Amino acid sequence: MSSTIRSDDDPVTATRRRFLTAGTAALGGAVVGAGAAAAETDNLPPNVPEWMKAPGEPTGGQLYGTPSPFEKGVVRNISTTLKQYISASSRSPLQDLDGIITPNGLFYERHHGGVPAIDPAQHRLMLHGLVERPLIFTIEDLRRFPSESRIHFLECSGNPGYSKPYGKTASDLVGLVSCAEWTGVSLKLVLQEAGLKPGAKWVVAEGADAAALTRSIPIEKCLEDAILVYSQNGERLRPQQGYPLRLFLPGFEGNMSVKWLRRLHVTAEPVYSREETSKYTDLLPDGTAREFSFYMEAKSIITRPSGGQRLSAPGFHEITGIAWSGHGKIARVEVSVDDGRSWQDARLQEPVLTRAFTRFRLPWQWDGKPAMIQSRAIDETGYVQPTLAELLAVRGENYFYHNNAIWPWRIDDNGEVTNALA
Amino acid sequence: MSSTIRSDDDPVTATRRRFLTAGTAALGGAVVGAGAAAAETDNLPPNVPEWMKAPGEPTGGQLYGTPSPFEKGVVRNISTTLKQYISASSRSPLQDLDGIITPNGLFYERHHGGVPAIDPAQHRLMLHGLVERPLIFTIEDLRRFPSESRIHFLECSGNPGYSKPYGKTASDLVGLVSCAEWTGVSLKLVLQEAGLKPGAKWVVAEGADAAALTRSIPIEKCLEDAILVYSQNGERLRPQQGYPLRLFLPGFEGNMSVKWLRRLHVTAEPVYSREETSKYTDLLPDGTAREFSFYMEAKSIITRPSGGQRLSAPGFHEITGIAWSGHGKIARVEVSVDDGRSWQDARLQEPVLTRAFTRFRLPWQWDGKPAMIQSRAIDETGYVQPTLAELLAVRGENYFYHNNAIWPWRIDDNGEVTNALA
Repeated sequence: MSSTIRSDDDPVTATRRRFLTAGTAALGGAVVGAGAAAAETDNLPPNVPEWMKAPGEPTGGQLYGTPSPFEKGVVRNISTTLKQYISASSRSPLQDLDGIITPNGLFYERHHGGVPAIDPAQHRLMLHGLVERPLIFTIEDLRRFPSESRIHFLECSGNPGYSKPYGKTASDLVGLVSCAEWTGVSLKLVLQEAGLKPGAKWVVAEGADAAALTRSIPIEKCLEDAILVYSQNGERLRPQQGYPLRLFLPGFEGNMSVKWLRRLHVTAEPVYSREETSKYTDLLPDGTAREFSFYMEAKSIITRPSGGQRLSAPGFHEITGIAWSGHGKIARVEVSVDDGRSWQDARLQEPVLTRAFTRFRLPWQWDGKPAMIQSRAIDETGYVQPTLAELLAVRGENYFYHNNAIWPWRIDDNGEVTNALA
Repeated sequence: MSSTIRSDDDPVTATRRRFLTAGTAALGGAVVGAGAAAAETDNLPPNVPEWMKAPGEPTGGQLYGTPSPFEKGVVRNISTTLKQYISASSRSPLQDLDGIITPNGLFYERHHGGVPAIDPAQHRLMLHGLVERPLIFTIEDLRRFPSESRIHFLECSGNPGYSKPYGKTASDLVGLVSCAEWTGVSLKLVLQEAGLKPGAKWVVAEGADAAALTRSIPIEKCLEDAILVYSQNGERLRPQQGYPLRLFLPGFEGNMSVKWLRRLHVTAEPVYSREETSKYTDLLPDGTAREFSFYMEAKSIITRPSGGQRLSAPGFHEITGIAWSGHGKIARVEVSVDDGRSWQDARLQEPVLTRAFTRFRLPWQWDGKPAMIQSRAIDETGYVQPTLAELLAVRGENYFYHNNAIWPWRIDDNGEVTNALA
């Protein structure tokens, strides 16, 4: 099937493909709706629907557009049983999304002190510490700098944690990841403007939220590809993403891309803030903690078919999902449809970008029997996404963050898809 | 300046750059806000703003997010003096956007019969005519096919027309163009499923709006890169963009990417529909009309600085904008800051994609004197974006569509930016 799809043979003479189920309407065959009989004349469309009989909504009815009311169920996924929502998260509905761009309205959220309502005219960024010339910037000052735009994923380090229950859908499991085109100023340029002093080894970033979230970032990352971001997918950042200014560290755990950025303190040592001691360290079996575990490692998830969905019939189905790595580009995604006994290379959507979602796709003929499907990502460093058992064997049960395990979906003979590790 | 920005010299020792204006606050220098004095201690941030003193909005307050209230002016641009809004357009606010992705809420609109409110469960696509097996598809049927996602621009053929007044802003002038990641099914695959008969040379596409907008498309384009699109920037199409299904023809004039697609009729000849006779033909000086002028040719516009904006002070400014071509990739964008006497190559944002926006950027030192800035795109075929005078000399004053002229901006000594051709 795979080779047929990719072939370039002449469609005029090629044998008809069979992507459709037996239930699909051929004209003169199965009847679809009241108009199908008329359609058999081969000149008339199916019945004229109501929405063609009168003009629709006027142009400009929405100066800022919203989705169709028929898509009202496609929203961020948040637990409705939390004790508080000030330090909480909402997840992207990955199973309903296509391609690699997450629309801003569905980008995942993780806040530690709620979402501040910041007036951009009053907001300031202070840059101080081991610099020749401490500076305070307005947003307009930063807009004066040379800009750059890049497409990158952002992922929470606890996506998911290691504790059961793991949830039912792709969103429940790994919805704390999204991908967008970010625009802003190279942090390197801004540090150059201030002039780094000898001994400058860390930059401490602080947010202007009620949590004053604070993280220490190695100077090497700040000079590599860090961006001071003001726009996301073309428009200015949403409040939930740090409006009017956030730090962005491609490939690093999400909390380090400090939102509502107000301060950069250049130091010789990390500050060991609350968010790098009581949180965001990784407790090992011997009771010591791995600290400063910055990179999000290679990972993938099949988003269709995935938990909560149902295959309508045996026959052709595309298996598709997303893969990403904090270390660079995705080199390969392998998919197994036989409980891990064999693996096939999925096709990767071009362009494959560094530290960005890569959409993968594999054609599949489902025979209607129970099946176990799963994907594993291999990044350009050669790293292979591990199984959950492999991760637990190395890290032990105390571990919470950086779970990048392979996640298999079980398909039963009714086509129902469920979490195979739940 | 350009070479300084692109250098990789060691920031620890490099001389401080001068991107900032004289008014920018250095700590101990100009005072910014009430807290700046405290900031001189080099340990304290500027005063603690109100939004840090109490928790912000709870997580999940917006299950589908919206922009900051401070950005409420960034909306689609629609004339408020039209006689009717059923056949009308709204423009993307290009001067406020960054990068290459247009967010769905700000994607331009052009409707001929208003926006129909289509129930996707009732919607059908009929494929008939010169095919071996006429078919009717539901949206779910089409979701069963192999999918693909690509980033492409979409542009109205009358963007702008040739008639004055041309407007003040980049949005007024060329806001009928946007760019997104589209996901759907290769039209080639769907035609293969039905099987083309000999003699199949055109495909007539019909929309399910009150205008039943209808266009004839050469079979070559249908087999090259046409997509039946159901998703845009990750989520399902917005109603204004053809929900639940549209045709997408990369690089062709926007009206041919028929929205609310309900019918594909495979024929031997074009049908010469209303939209390819009374509209969307190009009247030449001799009274004959150029018909089937499908391709949108190479074009560019500087979006910052652009009409309606103001340079706050002499000194460093980045010149940035977008370029695109219906014929393929952008090879080069040249920028002139001296009224066309000399041209410099702008830096192109990677990845440069075919039939997509390409963001360009050029560092510039404004000396505070009046200036004329403009950009011209060169695509991979070698085609060079023409001046308006060159276009008018060839096409005459009757012409309306396919105006891809270079558009210069005039900057006066106060920094005000205006349309130099208005």
